[in-house]
Amino acid sequence: MPYPAFDPRSIARHARPRTSVLSLLYAAIVGVTLIPLIAQAQPAAPLSAADSNPAKLGWMVGSPPPADKIIRFSDPDYFSFPKLRWTVCHFRQLMPTVNVSRGLGAPVPLKRSIDDAIDAVTFTPLGGDTPMTWEQSLAANYTDGIVVLHHGVVVYERYNGCLDEAGQHGAMSVTKSLTGLLGEMLVAEGTLDATAKVDTIVPELARSAFGDATVRQVLDMATGLHYDENYADPESEVWRYAAAGNPLPKPADYTGPRTYYEYLETVRKQGRHGVAFGYKTINSDALGWIIARVSGKSVAQLLSERIWSRMGAEQDGYYTVDSIGTPFAGGGFNAGLRDMARLGQLLLDDGVVNGQRLLPKAAIDDIRSGGDKAAFTKAGYPLLKGWSYRNMWWVTHNRHGAFMARGVHGQALYIDPTADVVIARFSSHPVAGNAINDPTTLPAFAAVAEYLVEQRD
Amino acid sequence: MPYPAFDPRSIARHARPRTSVLSLLYAAIVGVTLIPLIAQAQPAAPLSAADSNPAKLGWMVGSPPPADKIIRFSDPDYFSFPKLRWTVCHFRQLMPTVNVSRGLGAPVPLKRSIDDAIDAVTFTPLGGDTPMTWEQSLAANYTDGIVVLHHGVVVYERYNGCLDEAGQHGAMSVTKSLTGLLGEMLVAEGTLDATAKVDTIVPELARSAFGDATVRQVLDMATGLHYDENYADPESEVWRYAAAGNPLPKPADYTGPRTYYEYLETVRKQGRHGVAFGYKTINSDALGWIIARVSGKSVAQLLSERIWSRMGAEQDGYYTVDSIGTPFAGGGFNAGLRDMARLGQLLLDDGVVNGQRLLPKAAIDDIRSGGDKAAFTKAGYPLLKGWSYRNMWWVTHNRHGAFMARGVHGQALYIDPTADVVIARFSSHPVAGNAINDPTTLPAFAAVAEYLVEQRD
Repeated sequence: MPYPAFDPRSIARHARPRTSVLSLLYAAIVGVTLIPLIAQAQPAAPLSAADSNPAKLGWMVGSPPPADKIIRFSDPDYFSFPKLRWTVCHFRQLMPTVNVSRGLGAPVPLKRSIDDAIDAVTFTPLGGDTPMTWEQSLAANYTDGIVVLHHGVVVYERYNGCLDEAGQHGAMSVTKSLTGLLGEMLVAEGTLDATAKVDTIVPELARSAFGDATVRQVLDMATGLHYDENYADPESEVWRYAAAGNPLPKPADYTGPRTYYEYLETVRKQGRHGVAFGYKTINSDALGWIIARVSGKSVAQLLSERIWSRMGAEQDGYYTVDSIGTPFAGGGFNAGLRDMARLGQLLLDDGVVNGQRLLPKAAIDDIRSGGDKAAFTKAGYPLLKGWSYRNMWWVTHNRHGAFMARGVHGQALYIDPTADVVIARFSSHPVAGNAINDPTTLPAFAAVAEYLVEQRD
Repeated sequence: MPYPAFDPRSIARHARPRTSVLSLLYAAIVGVTLIPLIAQAQPAAPLSAADSNPAKLGWMVGSPPPADKIIRFSDPDYFSFPKLRWTVCHFRQLMPTVNVSRGLGAPVPLKRSIDDAIDAVTFTPLGGDTPMTWEQSLAANYTDGIVVLHHGVVVYERYNGCLDEAGQHGAMSVTKSLTGLLGEMLVAEGTLDATAKVDTIVPELARSAFGDATVRQVLDMATGLHYDENYADPESEVWRYAAAGNPLPKPADYTGPRTYYEYLETVRKQGRHGVAFGYKTINSDALGWIIARVSGKSVAQLLSERIWSRMGAEQDGYYTVDSIGTPFAGGGFNAGLRDMARLGQLLLDDGVVNGQRLLPKAAIDDIRSGGDKAAFTKAGYPLLKGWSYRNMWWVTHNRHGAFMARGVHGQALYIDPTADVVIARFSSHPVAGNAINDPTTLPAFAAVAEYLVEQRD
């Protein structure tokens, strides 16, 4: 698939992303351009949020747009900054997708009690010493939209860039957390045995690295896989995965895997399972396959039936798909921002919405409790000390017990059970990898949660 | 675009569609298979509706589906019977699309007063002498879904094949009627001058056949165009148009037009404008361009803003798009069936829904009054004697004043102002062209309208 989520560490290794000539070359060799160059073409000092606003740059405006303002799926840079700031709201216009129906009933409106004073909430960025306001953080993080719920009520909502309240935005790796949620839901319901070996559920994976992993190890990305998500390396496995998942017809001389599933069958083992956390998108797609096999439904169908059609959503969501219609469980979900906030509130409320239980409380408890901190530490995220990863959710273990879903260009779903706060954010940061925006994101989220507790409770 | 609507006459000329070896060859020459072979591969006696039900045939079931049950956009037969019976409900899973938002509010439910006795309504097919029941006509026409409104109330609703009430289905050439409606709406509102020459609005078309046509001639397809929609002829212009609109990357040696607009610029004149009706999809796309230029919005945006988000729709609709995001105004719309019925009721109610005027009455009056009957007669539709074509709607001029939108595999939106009846149908008939299903469609629709007047008024 063209845009698996980044491993934040790859950013840490490459503090200043380079224009990747090698990647361009590789794309040329592949013939049809199968591979977007994700956020590698930006200059050392990328355009600001205001200056890279897609409306200002005029992408895809006009009938037809001017030639230099057209964004095509076949362009190698369709998902590079600044084009990505348009693309994040328009994936379905570039590639095939599958619907996640909200059902046919009336949406359940979120109550509103707007507090614009939130703009002035101040925090100090990680590693910095100059305070910043919440409002300043929005542009710093290239925020396309952000909604804050307190006690389930919308207290703050802003849109910018390509997004508005009726739009849909790529959730990127936030998708993984949905996949993990569905997986743990099936575990809690007894449909999926977390202790089972993967090959007993998906025999096609028997000879792959996944074969002798447990479902639990996949859920927690504690698998030992030969798979590198370093986008700066044209030899990286991530490019083979992108080529396999790309829905475009393959060049005549293409001999690699042609679908997500075919790729997953080829993954080789590296190290042992159960030792360390390793953030690799292919775990989410393997879990999507496991979910499809045990439930008889794709993640798109299951998400619609169990959650999206029952939580009062305003809009359908959608997944991008590969050439045989498999939803990209590792990063292909798109949705309206308020509906992401509804999902966060559903988790905060132990799986109950509008008086109806949609998810087992045990599943949400299992996420909140977090995973193996020692395994997480081995993965080496300097900004996320003391965190863990469980069921494809990032668990802060801070004193509020907050947990997060995180996407590659700053997408976030932040759930703070103590403050009773949910923050849903879509963004299109020039740099792929949250290590870049975490300093102006994590303390901002915590500061707003504190503010809401202090000022409004 | 891969599926411009058929000219029904091409079916009349080829009573028994042949497997088109030439088309296959052409596709092979083009390299990447740009061209679907539309409904040309079916045997002389195609499978029945029951035997070709996509659920029975198992298309795209399983994770992954069995190799021989996968339908890919790059397959030359993805839109051939029987695969098309799956494809009509899943265009977005095969190609890029653009949303037609229903807005974020609550849908306005249609009232229901179901009358299953409609199943037994009897009619005699055109040219036949054996009576048939309405219920029998559903299978005969490969009906995927049908809704009948009487006085705005749902009196009948059935789903079959790939469709259910929460699904979306390709409207095919019913799309043209939406484009024509938007165009005539702009005319009635004074935004678009129907007497203007096209080149004064879209200068890019100045050197094409459209340049010296009036907007009115385009609206009524009374243009003289060198363009043949005969799908059985691999030299037909329709294939060049399909290649231009196909969103897949073009082969390296492809030299033709790369978008709908680029193709339209190349259309040569044949004969004179204003003389005869000639059903050619490219008129609808030229109109879509005109609409975009005068309104500043694509047909997808305009349809959403003016109609779909204001008529109480249950579901978003969508258009397929070409490689630069242009909606296929000639055949790319997809929607839920009940929403199509809502649209029909809006027209029947002179443009007012739920007490709110969405469309000028004058626009709807202009459609209902019909077009130039003499011009229509010259086009030679033996089953549609006395009809006319106006603003891309088919006007029966029967004693009920019924008018229709018609799609290539039996899609229909039938509006009978006298009986106060709307019939919305999605179907996937094996044969592309309504001349095949009209005998079991037109008298069936009229009979149900008569029944409703007699039994329920």
